[in-house]
Amino acid sequence: MAVISVAADRLPDSVYAGRLARAAGEARARGVDALLISPSADYAYLLGYRAPALERLTCLLIPAQGSPSLILPRLEEPLARHELGALADGLEIVPCGEGADSVGEVAARLPGALRVAVQDQMWASFVLRLRAALDPAELVEAGHAMSALRRVKEEPELDRLRAAAAAADAAMLAITAERLSGRTEAEVSRRINDLLVEAGHDAADFAIVASGPNSASPHHGPGGRIIEAGDAIVLDIGGTRAGYCSDTTRTAFIGDPPPDFAALYEVLRQAQAAACAAVAPGVAAGEIDRAARQIIDEAGYGEQFFHRTGHGIGMETHEEPYLFTANPEPLVPGNAFSVEPGIYVAGQWGARIEDIVICSESGGERLNTTGTDLYRVD
Amino acid sequence: MAVISVAADRLPDSVYAGRLARAAGEARARGVDALLISPSADYAYLLGYRAPALERLTCLLIPAQGSPSLILPRLEEPLARHELGALADGLEIVPCGEGADSVGEVAARLPGALRVAVQDQMWASFVLRLRAALDPAELVEAGHAMSALRRVKEEPELDRLRAAAAAADAAMLAITAERLSGRTEAEVSRRINDLLVEAGHDAADFAIVASGPNSASPHHGPGGRIIEAGDAIVLDIGGTRAGYCSDTTRTAFIGDPPPDFAALYEVLRQAQAAACAAVAPGVAAGEIDRAARQIIDEAGYGEQFFHRTGHGIGMETHEEPYLFTANPEPLVPGNAFSVEPGIYVAGQWGARIEDIVICSESGGERLNTTGTDLYRVD
Repeated sequence: MAVISVAADRLPDSVYAGRLARAAGEARARGVDALLISPSADYAYLLGYRAPALERLTCLLIPAQGSPSLILPRLEEPLARHELGALADGLEIVPCGEGADSVGEVAARLPGALRVAVQDQMWASFVLRLRAALDPAELVEAGHAMSALRRVKEEPELDRLRAAAAAADAAMLAITAERLSGRTEAEVSRRINDLLVEAGHDAADFAIVASGPNSASPHHGPGGRIIEAGDAIVLDIGGTRAGYCSDTTRTAFIGDPPPDFAALYEVLRQAQAAACAAVAPGVAAGEIDRAARQIIDEAGYGEQFFHRTGHGIGMETHEEPYLFTANPEPLVPGNAFSVEPGIYVAGQWGARIEDIVICSESGGERLNTTGTDLYRVD
Repeated sequence: MAVISVAADRLPDSVYAGRLARAAGEARARGVDALLISPSADYAYLLGYRAPALERLTCLLIPAQGSPSLILPRLEEPLARHELGALADGLEIVPCGEGADSVGEVAARLPGALRVAVQDQMWASFVLRLRAALDPAELVEAGHAMSALRRVKEEPELDRLRAAAAAADAAMLAITAERLSGRTEAEVSRRINDLLVEAGHDAADFAIVASGPNSASPHHGPGGRIIEAGDAIVLDIGGTRAGYCSDTTRTAFIGDPPPDFAALYEVLRQAQAAACAAVAPGVAAGEIDRAARQIIDEAGYGEQFFHRTGHGIGMETHEEPYLFTANPEPLVPGNAFSVEPGIYVAGQWGARIEDIVICSESGGERLNTTGTDLYRVD
């Protein structure tokens, strides 16, 4: 058997009962008969514990009218009851033995359904079987309904994001105080994973260490390259603490940066600061992207900044709202997202600066407090 | 940005080229126009590197006829080219910028398609969009085609499973030599994670520590319970080494087990041994399950053994073949799977024994070599 079951730090039961009720309200507002939520951050958000996504179906069924059901493998039932506590009283729990028709159990609870929303990350194998079992109902994405809830963080969620960001900052300060030259990217990445946990994360999620020409690859996988003098190094690190994620990027340089890299970096620093400064309620998400992009474009690096400026963050490292040029959606207080422009010169070097920012009533609250100047390291 | 990119230890390019060709053959044999493979173990099996499953589409398109295409986010292109090396020459690589219609890029390569297979773990959000873009093509599960390849391991894969099992055994011997009483389940679980890596895994995947009454919950999430004298403890641990998984379970007892637990355990030990001994080419997968179940049933514990006897293992901890009673599929040399009956008495205690077994020409090869007697620990 194989499970990663991270006990999320549960909030009071009333929080989850409230979220389940609001999810049913979203279903009604969107004209769907039910939400089908498979193991995911959505599931943990609604029930307060993480279930493993496995080849056996686990499915929280939230009908637009009536009380929810939890269809799950029989061997997961003890775990679910243990984690749910009193919340289980408001749910019908449906354990399915090996070989039982768990998809049929879902369909049996949705007679005459016309539109059913499935969790965005539900496995294709379940989507296809549910579609057949629910025929002729139309399947639609549940992501819009769930995002409507999750994109506006409650205060305990914001506190957890702040604590996670502080832990990531501590890890970043620690790694940039070490000697990096002479070590491989993979070694430094493993060291960062340890530092993320030492600094207070429950788990390290990722530690991109992209050195020299690799720094021009935004999602570089740390490998055997040995860091050396004259390297730019992009350090993009994050972990999870009490169920909420951190994600911060700083760029370091081994030795004195040549003038053209220093110039590129200064443009990036100004662009990132301008984007952070643009955060306020009512401002379109795309406007934050444009604030960074305009400065980078005007300096002639527009072609070298080929990704969006940021992504929402919470129980997942990537969630809504996404900060891309064409996104007209206005920011509201409680949104939390990364602001992370980058400039990448293929074959030569790259740089990125990333902070998590909360949109508050009064503007943007930058959670990461480490300096954004280029880090000079040995 | 957030990525876990574990560089799998690549095999020669010819291995992946061969697998891609065989996957296309499976598509032809099953009457599907193409396989659409999203980031997953299937993807890593075919291309030799792991890509992150993210909200931006990454999709390997393997047509029944013609050469494959790789549709991916533009910011992932440098990583993909770096990892693929010369294998990229045989692929059309299609980078998509932010906001580009990546689903449309897939559909444009499948004009007139009637049946298209999607990777089993592809996210629902992509499945629903692909279904609309490929209308009226029928979407089916790609799992059958991929499993036909992956369930029969090649010799380098078997060697990696052996090495992973040896590392898990070393971790199991180390933890059962320590004093466990007075520590919480969560502390012991974290310690096992460290031991799994020290013993040679690239990453620890899970460490179930289920003590006292929690040992009756097969997928218990290790928590704050303090282990004490008189506890049964189920230790179910595993990690990944060079892209292949380990998974082994042993049961320990703090102090002298009472006679009724000792009797239960002896039944379980015999059942697990009988199931291992039943492994041979041509034997139905269900027969291995029945070999264990018969002994447990006859001893009167049938109701307390409420999960299948095992699951295949390889690049995923759970994959085909699954060892459940009704599975008529004959084992063939190269299959690798767990054999792990358990007996669980709710509210009191439980026990499980798990080995990974390879089906070879001459019978079953047990990869885990630690003793299966009850572990007496302090």
